[in-house]
Amino acid sequence: MTVPRIGVTLGDPGGIGPEVALKALAGTAILPAAAYVLFGDPAVIGQAGEEAGIRLAPDPWKPRGRRAAGLFLEPIPSPPGTGGRGAPSGPNGAASFLFFESAVSAVRAGLLDAVVTAPISKTAWRLAGVPWRGHTDYLEHRHPGAVMSFWSERLRVALLSHHVPLSEAVGKVRKTALLEFFRALHRGLQKAPGGPFEILVAGLNPHAGEDGALGREEKEEIQPAVDAASREGIPVSGPYPPDTVFLRARGREKAVVAALYHDQGLIGFKLEAFGSGVNVTLGLPFVRTSPDHGTAFDIAGRGLADPRSMTEALRLAWSFSAAAF
Amino acid sequence: MTVPRIGVTLGDPGGIGPEVALKALAGTAILPAAAYVLFGDPAVIGQAGEEAGIRLAPDPWKPRGRRAAGLFLEPIPSPPGTGGRGAPSGPNGAASFLFFESAVSAVRAGLLDAVVTAPISKTAWRLAGVPWRGHTDYLEHRHPGAVMSFWSERLRVALLSHHVPLSEAVGKVRKTALLEFFRALHRGLQKAPGGPFEILVAGLNPHAGEDGALGREEKEEIQPAVDAASREGIPVSGPYPPDTVFLRARGREKAVVAALYHDQGLIGFKLEAFGSGVNVTLGLPFVRTSPDHGTAFDIAGRGLADPRSMTEALRLAWSFSAAAF
Repeated sequence: MTVPRIGVTLGDPGGIGPEVALKALAGTAILPAAAYVLFGDPAVIGQAGEEAGIRLAPDPWKPRGRRAAGLFLEPIPSPPGTGGRGAPSGPNGAASFLFFESAVSAVRAGLLDAVVTAPISKTAWRLAGVPWRGHTDYLEHRHPGAVMSFWSERLRVALLSHHVPLSEAVGKVRKTALLEFFRALHRGLQKAPGGPFEILVAGLNPHAGEDGALGREEKEEIQPAVDAASREGIPVSGPYPPDTVFLRARGREKAVVAALYHDQGLIGFKLEAFGSGVNVTLGLPFVRTSPDHGTAFDIAGRGLADPRSMTEALRLAWSFSAAAF
Repeated sequence: MTVPRIGVTLGDPGGIGPEVALKALAGTAILPAAAYVLFGDPAVIGQAGEEAGIRLAPDPWKPRGRRAAGLFLEPIPSPPGTGGRGAPSGPNGAASFLFFESAVSAVRAGLLDAVVTAPISKTAWRLAGVPWRGHTDYLEHRHPGAVMSFWSERLRVALLSHHVPLSEAVGKVRKTALLEFFRALHRGLQKAPGGPFEILVAGLNPHAGEDGALGREEKEEIQPAVDAASREGIPVSGPYPPDTVFLRARGREKAVVAALYHDQGLIGFKLEAFGSGVNVTLGLPFVRTSPDHGTAFDIAGRGLADPRSMTEALRLAWSFSAAAF
């Protein structure tokens, strides 16, 4: 079998990203065989390793060399001022964007199969003048049809919209946008391991509108989109009451919940899977996963960060890459 | 200790209400000592008992007699046509409203301490011409300041609004309404067993607005209301990111999440507690609880209904009544 090549970005140097990346990669013996390539500043890696008591010895990455399993490094020098802790800073934002963009360039050039991104700070990116709201925002602008989704052993959730105010998110629940979302999600899921998957669509209103008494979107927008997608052969059903669709999906091995706004999807997902959930961007020409937690500035540099979600992100990147071969 | 007097309504005769009520009361040996008074039609009780293989022998209720523990019946004849199964009907709606109103009249007259309501069908109430959207809607109209809340062992959630379309619910997130909600919730919690409680307020937008980047309500409405309530001595904090506030609350014994709309509260609550959660209306001059599930018309009359949530509703009504003595 071909060994997948998986890029790993360090994330924000001031957060727990470098720590969880190193901890997860220090467990390469229990990770599936792949070429894991760290994208980051050797100074940041050294500091995080010292704090966490981990000493990795990656080989220099030779992108066009023979494929082999192991741990490799692509050194990315970061700007002056990088490394401060405890709060978002411009230099850390610029550094984490550099690590990310270098890995994305490599995967786009076909030098990697997957990218796993440790958490960045959206505020730090803003301070650094990065025009994107986050990893997924960047990827969506470059790859229309990308879908933000969350994976855990018992529950999978995809989001129609994510980092927008709730009042705006409600306005995006329209038949045309929903139909495009179902198509993109279905296409993305066809490359996912463990399928074929069915899509369970959440309603927008309490009790999925209770036959129109508690809201019109289910009848006027969601149901017509579900019907149209079904006619195209997409395995989709709903809308289901938002407060029970997760229970329904949890009991089914091949179900993915299509959630209509950020917290509808993530309240359920985080309660179910916090600590081991994985964020997957579907619908890209490559695989991209990341842990489902943030930078946790408050515990950065103290050796306390739990690497489980990062480890699961690496494993899932491997499974998606293997499914694509 | 004084024995609490707890009225129990049968709910919709076409749903699983009568079945879960009888199953829960058949376990009186494991219920705390109280006078449990069934409000319902003896014919409906007989049919449900036969189907579930339960034969209860309640004594006639003497509301002004000596307080004694046991099982009692207040017979409420229901209109012709009551009893059909599998779908909402006008006669069943009229019957379940009669059972409910009789119990509420008794508790208002001081003849009971608490009312536990088995599930009704909102559609059946509409078909019967009942002008209320449900039990809580009825109680709120008669008792302004009533608050819908949900209780389980590990998580408690109160709702700013409930059975309204999401777009309307977003519009209700205003400083004045929030401050009134925090006051009413705090008052209601002071009569609850196991306190004193602290209130954790959920934000409205992703990441609680991320400092204004993902929505303005946190800064302009929610934070000012939290600050004003704090100045009044109410133990309230937030707004917290909606997708992690439930994790935060789950780890704290005395925390209640103030959720800003129906599904924000219930997605988290039902994943955490489905099957044993209890709906509690706070802020009434009496105690009212109910199971957190609906009529489940699809399994009615088949003996399959799980009475755990109803049993917990009876237990919690007892605890609330005992705390009030």
